[in-house]
Amino acid sequence: MRARIHITLKHGVLDPQGKAVGQALAALGFAGVGEVRQGKVIDIELAETDPGRARESLREMCERLLANTVIEDYEIDLTG
Amino acid sequence: MRARIHITLKHGVLDPQGKAVGQALAALGFAGVGEVRQGKVIDIELAETDPGRARESLREMCERLLANTVIEDYEIDLTG
Repeated sequence: MRARIHITLKHGVLDPQGKAVGQALAALGFAGVGEVRQGKVIDIELAETDPGRARESLREMCERLLANTVIEDYEIDLTG
Repeated sequence: MRARIHITLKHGVLDPQGKAVGQALAALGFAGVGEVRQGKVIDIELAETDPGRARESLREMCERLLANTVIEDYEIDLTG
């Protein structure tokens, strides 16, 4: 089973990487660019074949290692 | 218009970050974890309201700034 996890900064948390990207786009002449936020995407292969157990295991991975839940949100998608 | 861009290493390009995550998960006792790949996700707000023009502009942003197309692939999703 494969999964894709998105880890993004919580709304309201300052995102200097996203700001830098936004400024660089403006400097390159791209007009009409509003807020830019940058996060991480993790693609992971699991031996587990039960979607419920896979999701539970991924949730635990996020809580314990992948996300800093004080400032980050995570989102788990099973991709097949 | 809002968009989400995924930037991931091309297949076959070594991903030390993903490897480190995989090893850390194993060290924490998570069994059955196969390949782990880590990439970037960029959420961007655009003033442009035409989906075709927005996509074209995002493609150009990826080619010129956001992705290193020698080693990275990008994927553009308009999210509304």
